[in-house]
Amino acid sequence: MSIPPPDKGRSPRISPRCSPCTSPATARRFKDDIEALPRDIEKLIYTDLLPFDITGAPETREFLYRVADISATFVEKTFDRGTKILDFHQPEQLKEVLDLEIPAHPLHLDQLLHDCRDALKYQVKTGHPRFMNQLSCGLEVISLGGEWLTAAANINMFTYEIAPVFILMEQVTMRHMRKIIGYKNGDSTMAPGGSISNLYACMVARHKMFPQYKEQGLRVLPGQLVMFTSVHSHYSLKGAAATMGLGTDNLILVPVDSKGKMIPTELDRLIEEQKSKGNIPFFVCATAGTTVMGAFDPINAIADITEKHKLWFHIDGAWGGGVLLSKNTKHKMAGVERSDSLTWNPHKLMGVLLQCSTVHIKEDGLLIECNQMSADYLFQQDKPYDVNYDTGDKVIQCGRHNDIFKLWLLWRSKGDSGFEKHIDHLFEMTTYLVEKLKANTDKFELLNDEPELTNVCFWYIPYRLRSMKAGPDRCKILGEVQPILKGRMMTAGSLMIGYQPMDEHPNFFRNIISSQAVCRDDIDFMIVELYRLGYDL
Amino acid sequence: MSIPPPDKGRSPRISPRCSPCTSPATARRFKDDIEALPRDIEKLIYTDLLPFDITGAPETREFLYRVADISATFVEKTFDRGTKILDFHQPEQLKEVLDLEIPAHPLHLDQLLHDCRDALKYQVKTGHPRFMNQLSCGLEVISLGGEWLTAAANINMFTYEIAPVFILMEQVTMRHMRKIIGYKNGDSTMAPGGSISNLYACMVARHKMFPQYKEQGLRVLPGQLVMFTSVHSHYSLKGAAATMGLGTDNLILVPVDSKGKMIPTELDRLIEEQKSKGNIPFFVCATAGTTVMGAFDPINAIADITEKHKLWFHIDGAWGGGVLLSKNTKHKMAGVERSDSLTWNPHKLMGVLLQCSTVHIKEDGLLIECNQMSADYLFQQDKPYDVNYDTGDKVIQCGRHNDIFKLWLLWRSKGDSGFEKHIDHLFEMTTYLVEKLKANTDKFELLNDEPELTNVCFWYIPYRLRSMKAGPDRCKILGEVQPILKGRMMTAGSLMIGYQPMDEHPNFFRNIISSQAVCRDDIDFMIVELYRLGYDL
Repeated sequence: MSIPPPDKGRSPRISPRCSPCTSPATARRFKDDIEALPRDIEKLIYTDLLPFDITGAPETREFLYRVADISATFVEKTFDRGTKILDFHQPEQLKEVLDLEIPAHPLHLDQLLHDCRDALKYQVKTGHPRFMNQLSCGLEVISLGGEWLTAAANINMFTYEIAPVFILMEQVTMRHMRKIIGYKNGDSTMAPGGSISNLYACMVARHKMFPQYKEQGLRVLPGQLVMFTSVHSHYSLKGAAATMGLGTDNLILVPVDSKGKMIPTELDRLIEEQKSKGNIPFFVCATAGTTVMGAFDPINAIADITEKHKLWFHIDGAWGGGVLLSKNTKHKMAGVERSDSLTWNPHKLMGVLLQCSTVHIKEDGLLIECNQMSADYLFQQDKPYDVNYDTGDKVIQCGRHNDIFKLWLLWRSKGDSGFEKHIDHLFEMTTYLVEKLKANTDKFELLNDEPELTNVCFWYIPYRLRSMKAGPDRCKILGEVQPILKGRMMTAGSLMIGYQPMDEHPNFFRNIISSQAVCRDDIDFMIVELYRLGYDL
Repeated sequence: MSIPPPDKGRSPRISPRCSPCTSPATARRFKDDIEALPRDIEKLIYTDLLPFDITGAPETREFLYRVADISATFVEKTFDRGTKILDFHQPEQLKEVLDLEIPAHPLHLDQLLHDCRDALKYQVKTGHPRFMNQLSCGLEVISLGGEWLTAAANINMFTYEIAPVFILMEQVTMRHMRKIIGYKNGDSTMAPGGSISNLYACMVARHKMFPQYKEQGLRVLPGQLVMFTSVHSHYSLKGAAATMGLGTDNLILVPVDSKGKMIPTELDRLIEEQKSKGNIPFFVCATAGTTVMGAFDPINAIADITEKHKLWFHIDGAWGGGVLLSKNTKHKMAGVERSDSLTWNPHKLMGVLLQCSTVHIKEDGLLIECNQMSADYLFQQDKPYDVNYDTGDKVIQCGRHNDIFKLWLLWRSKGDSGFEKHIDHLFEMTTYLVEKLKANTDKFELLNDEPELTNVCFWYIPYRLRSMKAGPDRCKILGEVQPILKGRMMTAGSLMIGYQPMDEHPNFFRNIISSQAVCRDDIDFMIVELYRLGYDL
């Protein structure tokens, strides 16, 4: 099989020096247009040129190819281990080297292309194999292609009328995800990030228990609503409690064990305690993959408790949800089908481009009941098609970005088996990293010997601390050293790893492997580089 | 001046038949790699090919060029008036012609490119000059280029650490917008759509009056909070009231006059009424450009009332905000600087790609006070730069999509003067349409003789109704006819205009001009086409 010819037989060569290979007439026009350009400087000004004066203007195509070219060069550099992850500048310095001002008058196209190059030049390459800083690392090229198409389509995901293909695509993909979760029916939506997905789950749970809340508000309820989540859960649950008018004090934080997992007996005790105060528990969130330690709360044990108390059981699998894709890792979420809702962000473990977050609800119909406002101008019931395909009234957003294509296309490219390999690769690399750190206990100290996800939490131990006794002094220095090391990484541009304090622990690094690009060499490099940068600290 | 050479001297020709024009060594490798492909079918499977095995793999570049090519062809067709806006299929039909399933195993790259072409083939061309269906029409090619770059950069807008360039760019652009609004200082954020922008404004207003709400929730407040907006305002205000736990009953809908503008004396009366019931008014929303009629609420008169009652004054200018960019139209929002907050969506009148929404707050510091949760792992205070540049804690989202580049680049390309022309063009076309409709009063009936924005609301009057007396019978038929005409438009693919009922009015069309591509010919065409499609109704 040979490489397919370019789209529709049209050669997308961008250089004006290329001879066009379409029909002679088009070729002549193309040539004439291009040759006219340099003689007429004004035509290079956007407002006079692009794209409405000339249907199918070669300048439009030319501009898009140039942007594709700049982007492709950035992608190449991103995967080139000889390139820095970032060229760090302090904010004030960066303002000096970049021209960011909004001009009074139009700028030339060549200036805009220069702007594009400049923006990427100083940008952090989050797809670089040595960028381990966030839960979303990597740059999946197929997903990038999907996002380009999405931009060209430029639609809102509210009605079938406007987005027929993408609405159906979302339906198919969400159904596939619910099948993997083990929900027999149910409903789903995509949301602008895991925090909003979690908010949607909270809102649906509240609606399920007290539908009158939607019209009458919180003050008519017989008592204070309370929610439960672990002390290590994501801060978006606090955000949801504040947004929804419950107040963060009414988000009860359940203690965790030494591995960062929620303690079910504590959950049960706290629910009873709230009930005895006359408050109304309605929502429990288990975390599948905590942000810092990557811990999985014990789903079955928590489900037993939520069933006993008849509470909504949500799982925040924004980070860890991807483990469901491999038979080697899905046991970490055993019991997931017992939940009432699940947040799962394909832009994390699955490597889809930002943003791509999903929330799945076991009971069909609740999302729309909870959020429907039936705007006449958008969700008319007398449209010339089955309006059940309109999805816009399921969410509190009006316009919703098209986040499905970049996920769907990537899943088509990998298939289920490819995503299984993808997940397995991340875990293999993590195991390799943990082994390496364990082989260097003089230089590194692990927070947790057996990480459950790809979060590896550790301290770098500089030379002067190696012989120092454990205690508050050592602890203090240890906490001060890690940010300095982080600063050196950023200045060197060779490595990016996040750090934070947690509970009684001073600042430590949290290394994330969520990019397919990471290989053993990168991990070997990381060990040596940390040592090189931190030796004299 | 000649067209600048392709990026870094590399010719982005994608066809393997093109001879490469880089260094002889690269050229040889490129040629060898490409020639090797057809002999090894397995290499065409994504997981083995892209992009991690070969740094700077020509296949990666090749794939991206192909996607750029497919997109550019779609853009060309979008602006080609000889092309249909859509090739309408009922959902069940579309499922038959598209292969949307998630496969068990990887698909070949050529299938993925086929997928891309297919997705666009059946997609609605929202940038087509005869697509007048939504508040966001058009396809600004420079903004599209910006979105491609954004995708390649693939970052979250939460910290300077990760998004240095885009954080600064957002800062500069938001400051520019606040200057146009007339806020001396203040703060802003971008949000995933106008509904969330409005929600942020409500939340900040609530926080300003009752900061204890964040921790303790609604039930500790001395009374029921109530908000006010016009009966014609956007449904996102209802959504905000429900989400925040106030309940939609506590969003008080203020009557409008025959032009759809809020009646200030009614607002004043309703505020007093709520106070006398013991409720606590805290938030008034004026709409600058209502969704259906495009009406502007009287800002100065409302500001007098909110100042008297000491209430938060928000303006929902999601749709109409763009009028501030032209000296010919900015008077429509006279008094805007008296507001406390403003929603303004550049993805509407300004033509920026979806999504691009902004919310501006006059008082600096409130956004962060309201939403800050101080997650240790993200917003450490001991980072090696000034952490005031980290913006993530201003919003309830954790990850926030990078929506700035597509706006900034478009603004650079047009400058303030270009955007002024842009806005003026939309209004000129609107005036032309209204004149045309007035010249054909036998066939069309206007809901409002003098639209304030580019919304033109009208009924198409089919032949059989022209001699019928006004009354319930005619009214009923009129309401039934418009959706049928809309169905015919969709089937013909020649025109897309939205319709809805409103108040006592039966279904009518709402034509929106928000694309630069619309010219007089398109409006002439619309008149004739409506007549052609609707004559026998």
